[in-house]
Formats: sequence, structure tokens, C-alpha cells
Amino acid sequence: MKKKIKKVNAAILIIGNEILSGRTQDKNVLFISKWLNLNCGISVNEVRIISDNEKTIVNNVLNLSKRFNYVFTTGGIGPTHDDITAKSISAAFHKKYQYHKEAFNILQKYYGKKNFNDGRKKMAKMPQGSKLIYNPSSAAPGFLTKNVFSLPGVPSILNSMIDNCKKYLIKGSKVHSKTINIFSVESNIAKELELIQKKYIKFVDIGSYPFFRLGKIGVSIVSRSISKNKLQSVNKEIIKIVKKKNIKILKI
Amino acid sequence: MKKKIKKVNAAILIIGNEILSGRTQDKNVLFISKWLNLNCGISVNEVRIISDNEKTIVNNVLNLSKRFNYVFTTGGIGPTHDDITAKSISAAFHKKYQYHKEAFNILQKYYGKKNFNDGRKKMAKMPQGSKLIYNPSSAAPGFLTKNVFSLPGVPSILNSMIDNCKKYLIKGSKVHSKTINIFSVESNIAKELELIQKKYIKFVDIGSYPFFRLGKIGVSIVSRSISKNKLQSVNKEIIKIVKKKNIKILKI
Repeated sequence: MKKKIKKVNAAILIIGNEILSGRTQDKNVLFISKWLNLNCGISVNEVRIISDNEKTIVNNVLNLSKRFNYVFTTGGIGPTHDDITAKSISAAFHKKYQYHKEAFNILQKYYGKKNFNDGRKKMAKMPQGSKLIYNPSSAAPGFLTKNVFSLPGVPSILNSMIDNCKKYLIKGSKVHSKTINIFSVESNIAKELELIQKKYIKFVDIGSYPFFRLGKIGVSIVSRSISKNKLQSVNKEIIKIVKKKNIKILKI
Repeated sequence: MKKKIKKVNAAILIIGNEILSGRTQDKNVLFISKWLNLNCGISVNEVRIISDNEKTIVNNVLNLSKRFNYVFTTGGIGPTHDDITAKSISAAFHKKYQYHKEAFNILQKYYGKKNFNDGRKKMAKMPQGSKLIYNPSSAAPGFLTKNVFSLPGVPSILNSMIDNCKKYLIKGSKVHSKTINIFSVESNIAKELELIQKKYIKFVDIGSYPFFRLGKIGVSIVSRSISKNKLQSVNKEIIKIVKKKNIKILKI
């Protein structure tokens, strides 16, 4: 029986002036993309990095939410004035921005009634009807509104809670990949690779990425496909042309 | 005499399946943003990461090119079949996709006539009328089409050539920034920070970013402004509230 192929996609929306200004290196795109790929068979098709501005957030959330199966936002769900993700998503979907009862209880228990100040209470406010994404490391939950998952910007906290998104996600067919590393320059194999790509255009994506190692120039040829068989065929053809040209294939 | 404030902005368009899939960590956003900020007084207002697909590139180039003073694309200008940035930008602006004479000569000289194969020749093809961005490390030039700068994806090569963009750029007023690092949690100072932000809303952006250091929780309070005076005023007010709360300010 042939397995039905199911393509599920997502977009990532990084919210934060600190990434745009070059102050902070983003690490969440790589982490979320890999996690979605490996654990859920979901491909990330677009990423946007935007500033902490309500109108900007609203426009981008609406645009991505319409075009992709899922959207993952990171950043802007903390206690300070520049944390406006929850408020903006409420505005985008015309939902009330209000206390989530369970989130309020979780945070009150975590901080203790005495220390549960306004900033901390703010982290329990989210779009009406949102579902919680539990946070095992610092209590303040993320939330799911329609098809939009809102997670914090601090990578260690985001990483600790992403598995709690899984139960809300419909999985897609896993995309398999195969990498062949060679010591050569791209232009040596460009023509042949193009022919292979054309032959398998419907089934396999072939990418070619130069690298430098031990003072030598190399190329990683990365093939990606939902079909293991097609991937294997492409792989064989690439190895054949590489060997024909007497190019060394690296083990790692 | 009061200096006239000039706001110049830019967007970055990262083109490459390898970044979207989580295979490769992007490093170009941080580098370009910082470089534009420090060297040209230009703020990056939006970043997008998209796949190697002509229609996608065309749509995003046109959208960003209209909305921002400058666009910087990275990736997709090498010799292989998946390098389609030049072709796509030609399509976006209805320019012929053809050999740039000077680029052709540079590459022919670099590789030698005998080794100047089709893949390498491809790197001399760009939108008609483009201006070259010289590449001191691996010869293949980037190019400027209208307000769109196209640079390679390999960070070391991009870094080596970015200074050659400078002569084409109109500079903006430099954005100054000041960071105060404290050992405290965000919610301790959220209320007071919000009041300061409201007071200076037209002149200064205040952001607050949690960090972990030596097992302790801290916050970086980052203020950014074109006006050094306003920045200093904000800084004084923040230090005042921090001291009042007996919070320790870190030296670095």
C-alpha cells in the first residue's frame, strides 16, 4: 500500500528589536525548524523578524496565519512594557485580551501571592480562548490562538517547552535528507547536478553549499525528499558523477 | 545649530532552503544589522528568510524594495542550479538577465580562460544595468539593482565585501545605545520602566532582555535613540529607580 503524502507547513515570526538591531544572535529559527522537521514532519517555509510594534505584529500574524498551517511566534511575552505579543495577537484576531484563569493560578502559585506583582500578572493575560503551552522552566506559559503558537524569546526557556506544542499539531510526512560532502568547488559539478535536479524536480530538492575545512574548499550537496526511494536514486546518481570526476567524498 | 535627524532604513532578505530547514545557523542578519547601524546610521526594520524559489524571491524583493530605503539579499549568487537570486531579481524589475561585462572579465581573469566553465560564467550574469559590489576574497561580485544589494550567503565572503556597499548608501543619523545590566528580574522594574518609556516615547526606545549569568537571573535594559541627550536623561532615570530598589548594577 502506498503511503499518502501529507505536506504540513509553518512560518516563524521572531518578534524583537534586539534581533533586528544586531544586538542578539537569533537561535530560535534553527531550533524550531529542526524540531518541526524531525518531530512533526512540518516544513518551515518562511521566517520573518519584526520589531516590537503592535501594528507590525498584527499585520504579520494575520498574513502568515492565512498562508501557512501554523505560525510560531517567539518573544514579547514577558512582564515589561515592550512585551506586547499577547495584546497584539488579541487585536489581530479580535479577541479580548484578558487573564487566562489557569495561567493566573500557575503564576500565582509559582511566585506566591505576596510576590505576584502587576508585571508578573501581565504574563497571565492572553487572547480569550487561548490554549496554554506549559513552561517547565519558568512557569509563564506560552499560548495557542487559532493556528498561532506564542513562545518566549529566551532560547533555553523556549527549548524546554516546545514539546508541549506537539499535542496541538497535525503531523506531516517526514522529510528525509542526505548530505554528500566533497572536496571540490561548486562549479565543477554544477552542470551535472542541474541535470539530476531537473530529472527529479517533482520529488527531490537538491541544494549545494560551499564550506571551508582544513584550508580546503568543499561542497555539501544536500538532497531532501519525502520519498526515501527517490532520495536514494538521487544519491546514487550524485555519487556516480562525483566518482567519475575523481572527486573525494568525505566521510563526515 | 540643531542637527537634522535623518532616518534611513533597510530590510534583509535571506534566501536559502538551508537556513529555513534548520541545517545552517544564519549569521548574516546580525552582521549586516550591526554594520549598517554602526557604519551608516541605517536601521534594519524587517528581516525575511525565504526559500530558493523564483516566485517567492520576486514577491519578497518587490515588497521590501517598495517599503524600505534599501534591501540586502544574501545567498543564491553562486554557480549551481539552486542559485537563482540574480535571475529572480531580473524578473522582479523587468530587467534582462545577462552577462555583466566587467564581472565577466573579473571572473575570467581570476579563474583563467581554460577553467572558466559555464558554472563560473553564470556568476557574471545579473540584471541589466546592475552596479558591481567587488569581492576581495573569491572574486565573484555582488550587485546593486535599484535599491537592492545582492550579496553571497557564505558569511566570511559577505563580511569581506560589505564595505564595498558603502559608496552606494545614503547615511542616516547614527542611533546611539546604552545598556544597563542588573541582577534582578524583569517584573521588579517593569512598572517604572514603562513610565519612563511613556515619558520619552517619541525619542527613546527602551527594551528589557532577561539573561542568566553565574547562576543568577539578570536583565539588560537597552535604550536606543538618535539623540544623545535624551538617551542620557533616560539613563539617569533608570539608574535612579534601580538604586532606589537597591538593585546591583553590573559593570559589564
